[in-house]
Amino acid sequence: MPDENYRPLFFHRVLITIDEDDRPSTARAFRFALTTARDYGAELGIASVLESDDISIYESLMPDKVHEKRQELQDVVKDYAAKAKEFGVENVRPIVAEGGDVDDVILQQIIPDFQPDLVVCGADVDFASHGHPGAIGLRLARKSDVSVIVIR
Amino acid sequence: MPDENYRPLFFHRVLITIDEDDRPSTARAFRFALTTARDYGAELGIASVLESDDISIYESLMPDKVHEKRQELQDVVKDYAAKAKEFGVENVRPIVAEGGDVDDVILQQIIPDFQPDLVVCGADVDFASHGHPGAIGLRLARKSDVSVIVIR
Repeated sequence: MPDENYRPLFFHRVLITIDEDDRPSTARAFRFALTTARDYGAELGIASVLESDDISIYESLMPDKVHEKRQELQDVVKDYAAKAKEFGVENVRPIVAEGGDVDDVILQQIIPDFQPDLVVCGADVDFASHGHPGAIGLRLARKSDVSVIVIR
Repeated sequence: MPDENYRPLFFHRVLITIDEDDRPSTARAFRFALTTARDYGAELGIASVLESDDISIYESLMPDKVHEKRQELQDVVKDYAAKAKEFGVENVRPIVAEGGDVDDVILQQIIPDFQPDLVVCGADVDFASHGHPGAIGLRLARKSDVSVIVIR
Protein backbone atom coordinates (compact mmCIF):
# COMPACT_ATOMS: atom_id res chain seq x y z
CA MET A 1 0.00 0.00 0.00
CA PRO A 2 1.55 3.31 -0.97
CA ASP A 3 0.26 5.40 1.95
CA GLU A 4 2.79 4.91 4.71
CA ASN A 5 0.16 5.69 7.34
CA TYR A 6 -1.26 2.29 6.72
CA ARG A 7 1.63 0.02 7.42
CA PRO A 8 0.64 -2.80 9.80
CA LEU A 9 0.83 -1.80 13.47
CA PHE A 10 1.39 -4.43 16.13
CA PHE A 11 3.32 -4.59 19.39
CA HIS A 12 6.87 -5.75 20.10
CA ARG A 13 7.01 -5.52 23.89
CA VAL A 14 3.88 -6.55 25.73
CA LEU A 15 3.54 -6.08 29.48
CA ILE A 16 0.83 -7.85 31.44
CA THR A 17 0.17 -6.93 35.02
CA ILE A 18 -1.25 -9.80 37.00
CA ASP A 19 -3.00 -10.02 40.26
CA GLU A 20 -2.14 -12.61 42.84
CA ASP A 21 -5.76 -13.62 43.00
CA ASP A 22 -7.14 -15.43 40.02
CA ARG A 23 -9.78 -13.01 38.83
CA PRO A 24 -11.71 -13.93 35.68
CA SER A 25 -10.47 -10.92 33.73
CA THR A 26 -6.84 -11.78 34.54
CA ALA A 27 -7.26 -15.12 32.78
CA ARG A 28 -8.74 -13.46 29.71
CA ALA A 29 -6.11 -10.71 29.72
CA PHE A 30 -3.38 -13.34 30.01
CA ARG A 31 -4.85 -15.29 27.09
CA PHE A 32 -4.86 -12.14 24.93
CA ALA A 33 -1.28 -11.28 25.96
CA LEU A 34 -0.14 -14.83 25.13
CA THR A 35 -1.89 -14.79 21.77
CA THR A 36 -0.56 -11.45 20.60
CA ALA A 37 2.99 -12.07 21.92
CA ARG A 38 3.16 -15.47 20.24
CA ASP A 39 1.57 -14.44 16.94
CA TYR A 40 3.72 -11.31 16.49
CA GLY A 41 6.90 -12.58 18.17
CA ALA A 42 6.76 -9.97 20.91
CA GLU A 43 8.66 -10.12 24.19
CA LEU A 44 6.21 -10.69 27.06
CA GLY A 45 6.80 -9.16 30.48
CA ILE A 46 4.68 -10.67 33.25
CA ALA A 47 4.61 -8.33 36.23
CA SER A 48 3.17 -8.34 39.68
CA VAL A 49 3.62 -5.96 42.57
CA LEU A 50 4.12 -6.73 46.25
CA GLU A 51 2.34 -3.86 47.89
CA SER A 52 3.59 -2.56 51.20
CA ASP A 53 -0.03 -2.62 52.32
CA ASP A 54 -0.06 -6.36 51.83
CA ILE A 55 2.43 -6.60 54.66
CA SER A 56 1.15 -5.81 58.11
CA ILE A 57 3.32 -3.80 60.50
CA TYR A 58 3.57 -6.92 62.60
CA GLU A 59 4.83 -8.95 59.64
CA SER A 60 7.21 -6.21 58.51
CA LEU A 61 9.08 -6.68 61.77
CA MET A 62 9.75 -10.28 60.81
CA PRO A 63 12.08 -10.51 57.81
CA ASP A 64 11.14 -14.16 57.29
CA LYS A 65 7.49 -13.24 56.79
CA VAL A 66 8.31 -10.58 54.20
CA HIS A 67 10.68 -12.96 52.47
CA GLU A 68 7.93 -15.57 52.39
CA LYS A 69 5.41 -13.16 50.81
CA ARG A 70 7.98 -12.10 48.22
CA GLN A 71 8.74 -15.75 47.44
CA GLU A 72 5.05 -16.56 47.06
CA LEU A 73 4.56 -13.76 44.54
CA GLN A 74 7.71 -14.78 42.64
CA ASP A 75 6.32 -18.30 42.38
CA VAL A 76 3.00 -17.00 41.02
CA VAL A 77 4.76 -14.93 38.36
CA LYS A 78 7.14 -17.76 37.47
CA ASP A 79 4.18 -20.07 37.05
CA TYR A 80 2.58 -17.63 34.60
CA ALA A 81 5.92 -17.36 32.76
CA ALA A 82 6.14 -21.15 32.44
CA LYS A 83 2.60 -21.24 31.04
CA ALA A 84 3.54 -18.54 28.52
CA LYS A 85 6.49 -20.59 27.26
CA GLU A 86 4.31 -23.68 27.09
CA PHE A 87 1.81 -21.66 25.01
CA GLY A 88 4.54 -20.79 22.53
CA VAL A 89 5.82 -17.35 23.59
CA GLU A 90 9.57 -17.50 23.12
CA ASN A 91 10.69 -14.42 24.96
CA VAL A 92 9.23 -14.13 28.47
CA ARG A 93 10.41 -11.99 31.40
CA PRO A 94 8.94 -12.47 34.89
CA ILE A 95 8.93 -9.22 36.87
CA VAL A 96 8.22 -8.77 40.59
CA ALA A 97 8.42 -5.30 42.08
CA GLU A 98 7.65 -3.78 45.45
CA GLY A 99 6.40 -0.46 46.67
CA GLY A 100 3.80 1.53 48.49
CA ASP A 101 1.51 2.30 45.60
CA VAL A 102 0.88 -0.21 42.84
CA ASP A 103 0.16 2.49 40.21
CA ASP A 104 3.41 4.28 41.00
CA VAL A 105 5.39 1.03 40.95
CA ILE A 106 4.03 0.11 37.52
CA LEU A 107 4.32 3.62 36.04
CA GLN A 108 7.64 4.63 37.60
CA GLN A 109 9.54 1.35 37.91
CA ILE A 110 8.18 -1.44 35.74
CA ILE A 111 7.23 0.50 32.59
CA PRO A 112 10.47 2.56 32.41
CA ASP A 113 12.50 -0.60 32.99
CA PHE A 114 10.70 -3.01 30.63
CA GLN A 115 9.69 -0.31 28.10
CA PRO A 116 6.55 -1.99 26.77
CA ASP A 117 4.69 -0.61 23.77
CA LEU A 118 1.50 -2.26 25.03
CA VAL A 119 0.20 -2.80 28.56
CA VAL A 120 -2.48 -5.49 28.97
CA CYS A 121 -4.83 -5.38 31.95
CA GLY A 122 -7.89 -7.21 33.07
CA ALA A 123 -10.80 -4.87 33.74
CA ASP A 124 -11.35 -6.01 37.30
CA VAL A 125 -7.76 -6.26 38.47
CA ASP A 126 -7.57 -3.78 41.29
CA PHE A 127 -4.81 -5.30 43.40
CA ALA A 128 -6.95 -5.99 46.42
CA SER A 129 -9.03 -3.38 48.12
CA HIS A 130 -6.51 -0.86 49.42
CA GLY A 131 -5.21 2.25 47.77
CA HIS A 132 -7.25 3.56 44.86
CA PRO A 133 -10.64 2.02 44.29
CA GLY A 134 -11.51 0.69 40.84
CA ALA A 135 -9.54 -1.12 38.21
CA ILE A 136 -5.86 -0.49 37.75
CA GLY A 137 -6.15 -0.96 33.97
CA LEU A 138 -8.30 2.13 33.68
CA ARG A 139 -5.88 4.20 35.70
CA LEU A 140 -2.96 2.98 33.61
CA ALA A 141 -4.90 3.77 30.43
CA ARG A 142 -5.23 7.33 31.67
CA LYS A 143 -1.80 7.87 33.19
CA SER A 144 0.53 5.84 31.01
CA ASP A 145 2.15 7.15 27.86
CA VAL A 146 2.05 3.79 26.09
CA SER A 147 -0.90 1.97 24.54
CA VAL A 148 -3.13 0.13 27.01
CA ILE A 149 -5.72 -2.59 26.42
CA VAL A 150 -8.36 -3.25 29.07
CA ILE A 151 -9.74 -6.76 28.66
CA ARG A 152 -13.25 -7.67 29.75
CA MET B 1 -2.41 -27.11 26.13
CA PRO B 2 -4.70 -28.90 28.56
CA ASP B 3 -5.72 -25.89 30.68
CA GLU B 4 -8.67 -24.42 28.86
CA ASN B 5 -7.96 -21.01 30.40
CA TYR B 6 -5.13 -20.69 27.97
CA ARG B 7 -6.82 -21.02 24.64
CA PRO B 8 -5.83 -18.19 22.27
CA LEU B 9 -7.90 -15.05 22.73
CA PHE B 10 -8.38 -12.62 19.88
CA PHE B 11 -11.21 -10.44 18.63
CA HIS B 12 -13.90 -11.16 16.05
CA ARG B 13 -15.68 -7.81 15.84
CA VAL B 14 -13.47 -4.74 16.02
CA LEU B 15 -14.95 -1.25 16.22
CA ILE B 16 -12.82 1.79 15.55
CA THR B 17 -14.16 5.24 16.31
CA ILE B 18 -12.62 7.87 14.11
CA ASP B 19 -12.47 11.58 14.32
CA GLU B 20 -13.16 13.77 11.34
CA ASP B 21 -9.86 15.53 11.92
CA ASP B 22 -6.76 13.57 11.15
CA ARG B 23 -5.13 13.36 14.54
CA PRO B 24 -1.87 11.41 14.81
CA SER B 25 -3.32 8.84 17.21
CA THR B 26 -6.26 8.14 14.86
CA ALA B 27 -3.81 7.04 12.18
CA ARG B 28 -2.02 4.69 14.59
CA ALA B 29 -5.30 3.37 16.00
CA PHE B 30 -6.55 2.76 12.46
CA ARG B 31 -3.34 0.90 11.56
CA PHE B 32 -3.75 -1.34 14.64
CA ALA B 33 -7.42 -1.97 13.85
CA LEU B 34 -6.56 -2.86 10.23
CA THR B 35 -3.75 -5.18 11.32
CA THR B 36 -5.73 -7.10 13.91
CA ALA B 37 -8.89 -7.31 11.75
CA ARG B 38 -6.93 -8.59 8.76
CA ASP B 39 -4.71 -11.01 10.67
CA TYR B 40 -7.56 -12.61 12.64
CA GLY B 41 -10.30 -12.29 10.02
CA ALA B 42 -12.42 -9.98 12.19
CA GLU B 43 -15.25 -7.79 10.96
CA LEU B 44 -14.20 -4.13 11.17
CA GLY B 45 -16.73 -1.41 12.01
CA ILE B 46 -15.53 2.12 11.23
CA ALA B 47 -17.68 4.61 13.10
CA SER B 48 -17.94 8.34 13.35
CA VAL B 49 -20.48 10.56 15.03
CA LEU B 50 -22.09 13.74 13.77
CA GLU B 51 -22.52 15.71 16.94
CA SER B 52 -25.44 18.08 17.27
CA ASP B 53 -22.93 20.60 18.59
CA ASP B 54 -21.14 20.49 15.24
CA ILE B 55 -24.23 22.05 13.71
CA SER B 56 -24.96 25.66 14.58
CA ILE B 57 -28.53 26.74 15.27
CA TYR B 58 -28.33 28.81 12.12
CA GLU B 59 -27.28 25.77 10.07
CA SER B 60 -29.88 23.54 11.69
CA LEU B 61 -32.57 25.77 10.18
CA MET B 62 -31.22 24.92 6.73
CA PRO B 63 -31.80 21.26 5.90
CA ASP B 64 -29.31 21.48 3.03
CA LYS B 65 -26.51 22.46 5.39
CA VAL B 66 -27.22 19.55 7.73
CA HIS B 67 -27.43 17.21 4.79
CA GLU B 68 -24.09 18.51 3.55
CA LYS B 69 -22.38 17.91 6.92
CA ARG B 70 -23.84 14.42 7.10
CA GLN B 71 -22.63 13.72 3.56
CA GLU B 72 -19.13 14.99 4.39
CA LEU B 73 -18.84 12.66 7.36
CA GLN B 74 -20.20 9.74 5.36
CA ASP B 75 -17.50 10.39 2.75
CA VAL B 76 -14.78 10.42 5.43
CA VAL B 77 -15.96 7.09 6.84
CA LYS B 78 -16.36 5.56 3.36
CA ASP B 79 -12.82 6.63 2.55
CA TYR B 80 -11.52 4.84 5.67
CA ALA B 81 -13.58 1.78 4.71
CA ALA B 82 -12.06 1.74 1.22
CA LYS B 83 -8.57 1.94 2.72
CA ALA B 84 -9.39 -0.97 5.03
CA LYS B 85 -10.43 -3.13 2.07
CA GLU B 86 -7.30 -2.11 0.20
CA PHE B 87 -5.26 -3.14 3.25
CA GLY B 88 -6.80 -6.60 3.16
CA VAL B 89 -9.70 -6.49 5.64
CA GLU B 90 -12.49 -8.46 4.00
CA ASN B 91 -15.43 -7.53 6.15
CA VAL B 92 -15.83 -3.77 6.69
CA ARG B 93 -18.86 -1.82 7.87
CA PRO B 94 -18.93 2.00 7.69
CA ILE B 95 -21.08 3.49 10.45
CA VAL B 96 -22.24 7.10 10.78
CA ALA B 97 -24.44 8.05 13.70
CA GLU B 98 -25.83 11.28 15.06
CA GLY B 99 -26.69 12.60 18.46
CA GLY B 100 -26.16 15.15 21.16
CA ASP B 101 -23.43 13.42 23.10
CA VAL B 102 -20.76 11.41 21.35
CA ASP B 103 -20.18 9.08 24.33
CA ASP B 104 -23.88 8.28 24.55
CA VAL B 105 -24.13 7.70 20.79
CA ILE B 106 -21.22 5.25 20.86
CA LEU B 107 -22.30 3.47 24.05
CA GLN B 108 -26.06 3.42 23.46
CA GLN B 109 -26.38 3.21 19.67
CA ILE B 110 -23.22 2.06 17.91
CA ILE B 111 -21.95 -0.57 20.36
CA PRO B 112 -25.35 -2.26 20.91
CA ASP B 113 -25.92 -2.30 17.14
CA PHE B 114 -22.50 -3.46 15.93
CA GLN B 115 -21.75 -5.58 19.05
CA PRO B 116 -17.96 -5.34 18.94
CA ASP B 117 -15.78 -7.41 21.24
CA LEU B 118 -13.01 -4.80 20.95
CA VAL B 119 -13.20 -1.02 20.67
CA VAL B 120 -10.09 0.70 19.28
CA CYS B 121 -9.47 4.37 20.08
CA GLY B 122 -6.67 6.84 19.58
CA ALA B 123 -5.58 8.42 22.84
CA ASP B 124 -6.12 11.98 21.69
CA VAL B 125 -9.41 11.57 19.87
CA ASP B 126 -11.76 13.83 21.77
CA PHE B 127 -14.26 14.72 19.06
CA ALA B 128 -13.49 18.42 18.98
CA SER B 129 -13.63 20.60 22.04
CA HIS B 130 -17.23 20.47 23.17
CA GLY B 131 -18.86 18.13 25.61
CA HIS B 132 -16.54 16.22 27.91
CA PRO B 133 -12.92 17.27 27.96
CA GLY B 134 -10.23 14.63 27.45
CA ALA B 135 -9.98 11.60 25.27
CA ILE B 136 -13.03 9.58 24.37
CA GLY B 137 -11.04 6.33 24.44
CA LEU B 138 -10.47 6.68 28.15
CA ARG B 139 -14.14 7.32 28.83
CA LEU B 140 -15.13 4.33 26.71
CA ALA B 141 -12.56 2.19 28.54
CA ARG B 142 -14.29 3.12 31.79
CA LYS B 143 -17.93 3.02 30.70
CA SER B 144 -18.07 0.27 28.12
CA ASP B 145 -18.61 -3.38 28.92
CA VAL B 146 -16.41 -4.63 26.09
CA SER B 147 -12.62 -4.65 25.82
CA VAL B 148 -11.07 -1.32 24.83
CA ILE B 149 -7.61 -0.53 23.49
CA VAL B 150 -6.30 3.02 23.74
CA ILE B 151 -3.54 3.55 21.16
CA ARG B 152 -0.75 6.08 21.68
